[in-house]
Amino acid sequence: MSDLLWQKPGVAVDAQIQAFLAGDDVILDREFFLHDIAASKAHAEGLQRIGILSQDELAGLLRELDTLAADFRSGAFVLDETFEDGHSAIEARLTERLGDAGRRIHTGRSRNDQILVATRLWLKEKLARTQVLCKEIAGIALARAQAEADVPLPGYTHLQRAVVSSLGMWWAGWAEAFIDNALRAGETRDWLDANPLGTAAGYGVNLPLNRGHTGSALDFGRLQISPIYAQLSRGKFEMAALEALGSAMLDLRRLAWDLSLFTSAEFGFVALPAQYTTGSSIMPNKRNPDVVELMRASYASVAAARCEIEQLLSLPSGYHRDLQLSKGALLHGFGKGLGALALLPDLLRNLEWRADRMRAALEPSMYATDLAVDLAKQGVPFRDAYKQAADPQRWGEGDPAQSLKQRVSPGASGDLRLDVLHERLAALD
Amino acid sequence: MSDLLWQKPGVAVDAQIQAFLAGDDVILDREFFLHDIAASKAHAEGLQRIGILSQDELAGLLRELDTLAADFRSGAFVLDETFEDGHSAIEARLTERLGDAGRRIHTGRSRNDQILVATRLWLKEKLARTQVLCKEIAGIALARAQAEADVPLPGYTHLQRAVVSSLGMWWAGWAEAFIDNALRAGETRDWLDANPLGTAAGYGVNLPLNRGHTGSALDFGRLQISPIYAQLSRGKFEMAALEALGSAMLDLRRLAWDLSLFTSAEFGFVALPAQYTTGSSIMPNKRNPDVVELMRASYASVAAARCEIEQLLSLPSGYHRDLQLSKGALLHGFGKGLGALALLPDLLRNLEWRADRMRAALEPSMYATDLAVDLAKQGVPFRDAYKQAADPQRWGEGDPAQSLKQRVSPGASGDLRLDVLHERLAALD
Amino acid sequence: MSDLLWQKPGVAVDAQIQAFLAGDDVILDREFFLHDIAASKAHAEGLQRIGILSQDELAGLLRELDTLAADFRSGAFVLDETFEDGHSAIEARLTERLGDAGRRIHTGRSRNDQILVATRLWLKEKLARTQVLCKEIAGIALARAQAEADVPLPGYTHLQRAVVSSLGMWWAGWAEAFIDNALRAGETRDWLDANPLGTAAGYGVNLPLNRGHTGSALDFGRLQISPIYAQLSRGKFEMAALEALGSAMLDLRRLAWDLSLFTSAEFGFVALPAQYTTGSSIMPNKRNPDVVELMRASYASVAAARCEIEQLLSLPSGYHRDLQLSKGALLHGFGKGLGALALLPDLLRNLEWRADRMRAALEPSMYATDLAVDLAKQGVPFRDAYKQAADPQRWGEGDPAQSLKQRVSPGASGDLRLDVLHERLAALD
Amino acid sequence: MSDLLWQKPGVAVDAQIQAFLAGDDVILDREFFLHDIAASKAHAEGLQRIGILSQDELAGLLRELDTLAADFRSGAFVLDETFEDGHSAIEARLTERLGDAGRRIHTGRSRNDQILVATRLWLKEKLARTQVLCKEIAGIALARAQAEADVPLPGYTHLQRAVVSSLGMWWAGWAEAFIDNALRAGETRDWLDANPLGTAAGYGVNLPLNRGHTGSALDFGRLQISPIYAQLSRGKFEMAALEALGSAMLDLRRLAWDLSLFTSAEFGFVALPAQYTTGSSIMPNKRNPDVVELMRASYASVAAARCEIEQLLSLPSGYHRDLQLSKGALLHGFGKGLGALALLPDLLRNLEWRADRMRAALEPSMYATDLAVDLAKQGVPFRDAYKQAADPQRWGEGDPAQSLKQRVSPGASGDLRLDVLHERLAALD
Repeated sequence: MSDLLWQKPGVAVDAQIQAFLAGDDVILDREFFLHDIAASKAHAEGLQRIGILSQDELAGLLRELDTLAADFRSGAFVLDETFEDGHSAIEARLTERLGDAGRRIHTGRSRNDQILVATRLWLKEKLARTQVLCKEIAGIALARAQAEADVPLPGYTHLQRAVVSSLGMWWAGWAEAFIDNALRAGETRDWLDANPLGTAAGYGVNLPLNRGHTGSALDFGRLQISPIYAQLSRGKFEMAALEALGSAMLDLRRLAWDLSLFTSAEFGFVALPAQYTTGSSIMPNKRNPDVVELMRASYASVAAARCEIEQLLSLPSGYHRDLQLSKGALLHGFGKGLGALALLPDLLRNLEWRADRMRAALEPSMYATDLAVDLAKQGVPFRDAYKQAADPQRWGEGDPAQSLKQRVSPGASGDLRLDVLHERLAALD
Repeated sequence: MSDLLWQKPGVAVDAQIQAFLAGDDVILDREFFLHDIAASKAHAEGLQRIGILSQDELAGLLRELDTLAADFRSGAFVLDETFEDGHSAIEARLTERLGDAGRRIHTGRSRNDQILVATRLWLKEKLARTQVLCKEIAGIALARAQAEADVPLPGYTHLQRAVVSSLGMWWAGWAEAFIDNALRAGETRDWLDANPLGTAAGYGVNLPLNRGHTGSALDFGRLQISPIYAQLSRGKFEMAALEALGSAMLDLRRLAWDLSLFTSAEFGFVALPAQYTTGSSIMPNKRNPDVVELMRASYASVAAARCEIEQLLSLPSGYHRDLQLSKGALLHGFGKGLGALALLPDLLRNLEWRADRMRAALEPSMYATDLAVDLAKQGVPFRDAYKQAADPQRWGEGDPAQSLKQRVSPGASGDLRLDVLHERLAALD
Repeated sequence: MSDLLWQKPGVAVDAQIQAFLAGDDVILDREFFLHDIAASKAHAEGLQRIGILSQDELAGLLRELDTLAADFRSGAFVLDETFEDGHSAIEARLTERLGDAGRRIHTGRSRNDQILVATRLWLKEKLARTQVLCKEIAGIALARAQAEADVPLPGYTHLQRAVVSSLGMWWAGWAEAFIDNALRAGETRDWLDANPLGTAAGYGVNLPLNRGHTGSALDFGRLQISPIYAQLSRGKFEMAALEALGSAMLDLRRLAWDLSLFTSAEFGFVALPAQYTTGSSIMPNKRNPDVVELMRASYASVAAARCEIEQLLSLPSGYHRDLQLSKGALLHGFGKGLGALALLPDLLRNLEWRADRMRAALEPSMYATDLAVDLAKQGVPFRDAYKQAADPQRWGEGDPAQSLKQRVSPGASGDLRLDVLHERLAALD
Repeated sequence: MSDLLWQKPGVAVDAQIQAFLAGDDVILDREFFLHDIAASKAHAEGLQRIGILSQDELAGLLRELDTLAADFRSGAFVLDETFEDGHSAIEARLTERLGDAGRRIHTGRSRNDQILVATRLWLKEKLARTQVLCKEIAGIALARAQAEADVPLPGYTHLQRAVVSSLGMWWAGWAEAFIDNALRAGETRDWLDANPLGTAAGYGVNLPLNRGHTGSALDFGRLQISPIYAQLSRGKFEMAALEALGSAMLDLRRLAWDLSLFTSAEFGFVALPAQYTTGSSIMPNKRNPDVVELMRASYASVAAARCEIEQLLSLPSGYHRDLQLSKGALLHGFGKGLGALALLPDLLRNLEWRADRMRAALEPSMYATDLAVDLAKQGVPFRDAYKQAADPQRWGEGDPAQSLKQRVSPGASGDLRLDVLHERLAALD
């Protein structure tokens, strides 16, 4: 590792300890590196505005930061274990190329606000991505709800056949779920859209930093005013972001459960396109819905990431090194979570229903509730109607199309109200 | 237990099994009972509007529901193990008092949407309460930030003395934290403010239920359209509510940690009013800050509640009895969490600082960072200034008042910007 | 509330704060009360042995403690909010009845070791109960494995039909699982079977307490020597106990999942006796396997209890009031967990298989793996055999009895080795 | 990626989906690769014993497996994304080098039991390592307890000064804690020490596999008999291992908390050797105890790993692809956990106490409890003695040496009983 920024003369460095301290931190910093560079540009501009940097120094710094970003993107610059972390790497490169201007870039900032601002930009990006995916999923679900509104599907409670449902209802349920998830992702992004740059190590500095400039240059919605709060928000904002993602993942998990059941031989309602299945190393006959299972499992990674950060936060105010572990957790959670969400749109587009199997699973008992309500409409008190309708003799054969059409309570198969969902989805843009 | 609503003739009921099924469910239902009654009134009004109930029947039901609510509040009616659950208790009472009108109340609804709507009303109430408390806390913190803006307090990172901070900064940090927490509580309330009543068992009914009426009668912001989604949202909305509360509790935990340290003999920065302390059963000399410790601990109950619900939700769509366990978790989490938050305003109002001890904890090294930045202002590249300022010879005695005044980066002690926080807080109303 | 033990003169007590401090602590203490009394008897005996109590005083204390236990059991004594906690209640009663002897009982102990010892006795009891239930479950599973060894059952991977399995294999799997769970419960009980009484507030006392006597009187396996460790073990031992219970609950959750699927109309492999099912409030046709679902859900309560305690333990050494919250968590986790486990033996005894449905679910592809291995036995390299056996043309009709008999790898249907499992189960006694 | 083992002709493979399925699985498999090779050798030997492989084929396989292991260790063979997973890589290599013998190696096994056996061997190794570290830590703590038995240290409850304690007591507490942790690691290792190889995909095979041979060749303590249970134990055993590690990490977290406080300026009881501290990027004056903080934080990674696996396990019996995610979690948890534990022995050896600061923190009130007990010894009922001893007038100056010597309850400073702890530690070997 190159010299440590903060190293004091005469203090020996123990390799094993340094390795423990570093962990895979510098590798994780790759994710945040471009955001760190962007924030460094804004910080440099701010410093020039308050006279710490000359116009020339600023120009040099901006140029070299752009070059570094380009080199990083192209692979000409590799962020690896030769650096303590991404922050040090930037400063080292600027100093090597520009001398004193590089040695000035850290004026008025600390690695504490540097990682805060880079992480925050990253969180905003990931929540925006979460929202885009949720909207796409909702859109597909709405379109299929419309197209397959009248296809009968058994409706279950307790995994027991209950009443006749429809693909229209099934799809509309996921549509509304992912509209809510998209809304939450957006609101969470706005909630944490506050600029922490300029809070230094948690106590500000004796410089009139132009935080207004850095905030607008980096497109933040507001200033995070208190340096104390900037530190308190580390981990707290990460958790909120993972919770917003988790909301979508909860629904994905239940959707994947439906598909896992529906693709079993016993249900047989869905055929998965072959590319979503895999084989077995020992059983020649198998086509397994592994994609669906890994989607279901991905919730676990989001939960684990949140758990890891939550465990870190039983601390007094102020920065503590414990918080470093939040980075890896964040990458793990959003990596796995968005990876799973990103496959969902195509999977939903490509789902093939087996209407015959769904129809065959409808049985006379599933009309009993309709019958009870019909009796109630005719004046029989519902509790009596319920008892009469429990008699299998009265169930008859039943007609699913009829049952679906007559289910006219708002939101049910006879009155899906997809237009309202369309409006809510459109309003998210 | 009275007769079960759904009991079939000839099926024996096993007491041990019934006890397991019931758990403490009916006791928990006490929390939701008044909301259940309110929703039952709205449901009855809706049924009358679509001709299922006569005007007279409706009048009777509304009267008896009001009476039941009054009896429940007064203790004349006790919801206990003689009932299967709160829902059955309401129907049984109405049937007993009104006959057929009582037997009609359940037309078009299921216990599934009945508990959903009662829980949702409860969640809205608890989130509103969370917001009120967070705003009160933020208000107190802001007032004390203003009043004690210039009182020096050591600033720590890694629990090591870092730079001179101030009570102004400390209080402003908590103020901004709780403004964000209040905001989140409010947004979460709005996010889940959707009427599930009228979705029945998750598939709607063959009745044109007037869901618009029930929604506005119960003051919901929108309709939860899809019956499928109504079921999917069970647990998901509860988790979101606990997460919003958890956000405030995370800050409370860190605040309690600060106070736990500050009330130790070693720090000695804070004296707790005697009513916030307790004694020991064996050690005559002790005055312990138990309130602060239990506040810190209360986060655990909110976390546990969220964990319990999260563990239930790996399920296919549709209702499953598993979800019953979410009720107890919810009560536990909000009970402990709001209980702790509710004590915070007074505790904060009554905190007594020991300015002498805080001042005595300031030491010359805590001015080194100011010095480095001063050198940087004079043109020394920061990285060189940093090295020069590391020399204890240069630290001198230091003047905390001076240090605080010169810390002029926005949000720091020299420029607290409390007015902006005041505005954000006021905007929440 | 009665006078607080530790109350100092002139300090006002705030009711709201006291309520927060107390929580439902005294109610929870009911669970531990008899253990607290037993430990108080041992402590008194120890004090007499070192001359702090006279023989007469001891006799009085033992008598009154027995009376208190009897009164508590009979309901003549009610532990309620008039007491601060169970410990104070015992001391108050003894003092009221015996005067000075009562005022001497707390010599050399603290509520810290008092709750430790009562909790530890409780944990041992609950782990013993866990073990008994696991052994009973394993025994039933073994018996049914033997009785139904040759009944074919489809074997699934990824919820896809894989190969022919048998009830023998299915039952043997649960048998071995619960043998391991019983073993773990027992080992965990032994692991924490250490006497903490006599460690006082975590630093011992200036008395030669006879900890050897209290340990053997209370049937502890060893002394927990270090008072510091006694405090460190609070929460840690509770977590270990919940983890041991959790091990069994993990298997219960998966077993309940199997039954949930098997009782669906689509699988239809199992008929639940009517007492294990419930009806719907709206759907007259439903018989729902609620017991199975609540069993599955019960894991969540054990997980939540563990989570709550885990969240409390980020603390320096020594006692902190935070730990009080571990009590409620413990009761919740073991209450729900053992409640669910206790129903399992009868449920397993009463399961009715529908052999026709299981047989009907076997399909030719499920013999493909046997075929591939047969080809390998005949000398075809397995990877080639696998390809040949993937050809549906080669599957034929298949004979489940044959397939089961020939599956002779140890543990498989042709060689179940139930005798070894019987031996392992017997060795637990 | 090379050809997939199970690929069917004519099925297109989607790159994005394959990437999602694979994740970083093959990279994770590096950790298990040598165990997979060892188990493959045992499996081959078993196959030869039942006539599936010739003596020559076996010899070739063993030779090539050894070569592969050597190449992997030397870096000549790199397990990377060109392979689907480690299992396929082994089979591909053997087939490439040996032709039909390679194509025979998978006879009678599935990737399901292959990963089970490799993971199990890995778990045993990691638990053994956990035990070694815990024993080493306990040994150091015992040695320092002896050497520093009489050095006074303030004893705290609620972070408030309580009574005089000693380094002897403090060290002995950690010693006993880590003896228990070592014991649990060993018992957990034995508990899961069961051979799953030969259970194939969870239903055994139609071959008389010699599971006895593979078990003894791989040094397993017993056979995991049931193939169904082998699948049920996946995740369950991983959780148990992480829980055993977690037990040690809970204590490490509390130890790190003590050191975090003790190294603060306010406590000042401990000086950390310079190599355990780091500097700040902005504050020239800082020396931060980052190692201690990261040790404290490491519990979070173990908790997160356990959480991730726990979230996966709400499944019916049989294999599901969800379980794949347990691998990464396991590596993360043990990686971070053992990394932190491994640094502890040296840190403990090198801790430098500042006896002057510890002594200065003793205050007269800390003798009050001793005084109360002294009065009790003289015949004053303890509850009265407690009140008398609460009077500061009676506290005097106090003599810590005297207080420590007289604290003779077993385990306290006057009777540490280190010999018993030595014996328990020695008994672990």
